[in-house]
Amino acid sequence: MEQVDYLIHAKWIITCEEQNRVLENHTLAIQGQKIVDILPKESALQRYQALQEHHYDTHAVLPGFINSHTHIGMSFFRGLADDLKLMDWLHNHMWPAEKKWLGQEFVYDASLIAMAEMIRCGTTRFNDMFFFFEATAEAALQAGIHAHIGMHIMNVPNAWATTSEEYFAKALAFYDAYKNTEGITITMAPHSTYTLAIDDLIKAKEIADQLQLKINIHLQESAAEVQQSLDTHHKRPLQRLYEIDMISPNLNAVHMTQLDERDFEIVQQTRPSIIHCPESNMKLASGACPVEKLIRLGINVALGTDSVASNNDLDMIGEMRSAALLSKVTTGDACSISADQALKMATLNGAKALAIDHLAGSLVPGKIADFIAIDLDCLETQPLYHPISQIVYAASRDQVTDVWVGGKQLLKNRQLLTLDEKELRAKAQIWRKKIKS
Amino acid sequence: MEQVDYLIHAKWIITCEEQNRVLENHTLAIQGQKIVDILPKESALQRYQALQEHHYDTHAVLPGFINSHTHIGMSFFRGLADDLKLMDWLHNHMWPAEKKWLGQEFVYDASLIAMAEMIRCGTTRFNDMFFFFEATAEAALQAGIHAHIGMHIMNVPNAWATTSEEYFAKALAFYDAYKNTEGITITMAPHSTYTLAIDDLIKAKEIADQLQLKINIHLQESAAEVQQSLDTHHKRPLQRLYEIDMISPNLNAVHMTQLDERDFEIVQQTRPSIIHCPESNMKLASGACPVEKLIRLGINVALGTDSVASNNDLDMIGEMRSAALLSKVTTGDACSISADQALKMATLNGAKALAIDHLAGSLVPGKIADFIAIDLDCLETQPLYHPISQIVYAASRDQVTDVWVGGKQLLKNRQLLTLDEKELRAKAQIWRKKIKS
Repeated sequence: MEQVDYLIHAKWIITCEEQNRVLENHTLAIQGQKIVDILPKESALQRYQALQEHHYDTHAVLPGFINSHTHIGMSFFRGLADDLKLMDWLHNHMWPAEKKWLGQEFVYDASLIAMAEMIRCGTTRFNDMFFFFEATAEAALQAGIHAHIGMHIMNVPNAWATTSEEYFAKALAFYDAYKNTEGITITMAPHSTYTLAIDDLIKAKEIADQLQLKINIHLQESAAEVQQSLDTHHKRPLQRLYEIDMISPNLNAVHMTQLDERDFEIVQQTRPSIIHCPESNMKLASGACPVEKLIRLGINVALGTDSVASNNDLDMIGEMRSAALLSKVTTGDACSISADQALKMATLNGAKALAIDHLAGSLVPGKIADFIAIDLDCLETQPLYHPISQIVYAASRDQVTDVWVGGKQLLKNRQLLTLDEKELRAKAQIWRKKIKS
Repeated sequence: MEQVDYLIHAKWIITCEEQNRVLENHTLAIQGQKIVDILPKESALQRYQALQEHHYDTHAVLPGFINSHTHIGMSFFRGLADDLKLMDWLHNHMWPAEKKWLGQEFVYDASLIAMAEMIRCGTTRFNDMFFFFEATAEAALQAGIHAHIGMHIMNVPNAWATTSEEYFAKALAFYDAYKNTEGITITMAPHSTYTLAIDDLIKAKEIADQLQLKINIHLQESAAEVQQSLDTHHKRPLQRLYEIDMISPNLNAVHMTQLDERDFEIVQQTRPSIIHCPESNMKLASGACPVEKLIRLGINVALGTDSVASNNDLDMIGEMRSAALLSKVTTGDACSISADQALKMATLNGAKALAIDHLAGSLVPGKIADFIAIDLDCLETQPLYHPISQIVYAASRDQVTDVWVGGKQLLKNRQLLTLDEKELRAKAQIWRKKIKS
């Protein structure tokens, strides 16, 4: 008998490999942070002796969701300003609120709450873009969730920084402090082409190249953004970034609801990942990313929630459903974006966008043991013919019962193990009172 | 002190009246089946003595949701055939499955499961269109939920009936048996213009007129339906019904994703209610009902889930969110369909469509005590600035803790009081095995 730390027995294991498999009555063998085997339960019991065994008898076990675009420091702005147009919402509500409230403690508390919410809905890794990076990094280390933290650069003054120079300086200081911290991955995150001069965009790209970091940028989120760029620069935002060689497989282009034929040519040639945020794009009336066509061109499309101020949750199950439904109704094709494709966008494709698909995004021996259990034995997901369909089209976030990150359990039967839910609710109340007054 | 049955104390009461009000620390006084008073908690404690008091200290109390379009006998087909085009799904999957499996026991069991799901997500009244009406009626009487049961007529043979004559005969037999049953409201429900000859549609209208019943019909659900009508009859379905005087305030036109200018004229002139089923329309790629424009024309728009085979749930919270998001992205206006409007579509507008707005759909003294409690003290709905926004954009169905219908409690802290959840799950398993084989 070989010794392992955990045997995870599941009614179904959904591997989320390129050729996805749904394995019935199988077992994950976990040693340290890694998956060492996936095999039929009977074989697992013959081959392995485990320190602990977990039985998910009515559950699907699958890779943890990767939320590929977040602003998790915005937790306290959830529901503060809804049903507003993007630029009104941004200029007259979000940026003023950020200017007034941002700070180390604010972002730390907001990050912890967002992480609690993410863990409770099965997210094991997120790709963030906000301010006060240290606060988010420290919160992630406490929560035990994998954090990809963008060195967010813009030329909009707030309590974090007042000029792009200061943004760059603070970003590099953060990089130096956290570049070797396990659990934290640093990315370059210039905000957008409308909040940065071209020289700053070039500088961001140079730093990313030098430090070998992924780049994340909001790009062509709305028609107004594209029009503003045409008015000011006589070029579309994508074209401007193409001309400074920023569009490449190293780029995550977030939103991309507006693509003309030339944009499709550029994307096909340069092959960035696209981060699709369907609920935020719908709520802000930004448009619908042409996911079906991008996938047909072989482009990697991953899924993000955006912030709780424009969504208004961090629920990747709901986001998968919205991605599938939005693609069907906008293409007029009910076959567009199947449940299986939506699930892949929330797992393996996210790992590809974050350049960690050799480590995460699917359940394969050798990869990190980031996995979740979803209980499908609720009335709402019965009867059950196809587990993936049931997860994408019928399950809700409260059916996520258990979450593991790197072989460590963060959620057990809906209870958070690394965070204090009651304390976080109390913190939310305190901040609400301050912000509301 | 006046004596009442119940005092329901709530952190927030959302009345859902035409001019919606959010009342803080108020109380509902319930006597028999009716609401007798709504007043500040302090005044309630001075004025009323109650047999029981209920404290919803972190909850919003609001009218129960009205699901204005369902096929609840289809529970066992949830997830059986997804990601398919409407006509393929209908002709090659749903109708054959119905032909094979339909029966009294099947529909009774399926109805109970659907009712359990509806109660668990805050629905107190539904407007159905299926077969084996008695089975659904008896299930509703057991569950304690208000049922509006359509006398469903079509000319597609199945285990219920083989010709439209047989459909009419069975419908009228059902009417005679249940017309005076409390809790059951009977409607006329010709399936569509593509499954019935014009004479049958006229006959359905005549019966509805004679018996003073609301009419429900699927209408212009997809472009293919309209095209088929143009090819065969050289008229659009709406025009055909207009010519037989079926389009009127007495009609609930379900779906209506396809409207041209002439259709808008007819609708504006004749004023039917429109039943909007956004998730089903998205999933089947049927299109998006132009809700914003219809509301501006003064048309009553209510909300339905359609069946779990095309949604795949009966969750009205999710449906409100989808209605708001879909309208925003299709109109390009983030102000279109606010949280408040979406909530009204799921409550008062449903009552109007069902012609019972003098009895239900809002919390007003004199109306039936159909109400639900949603706990907003979860991390996912914190911090809380606007309860309605939080319910529509951030809450999930598991936050519905308590449901009351006609002054009788059906759900208490997530536990069903009139139905046996475990037994229903076992029934779902049995039917799944039969259907899968």
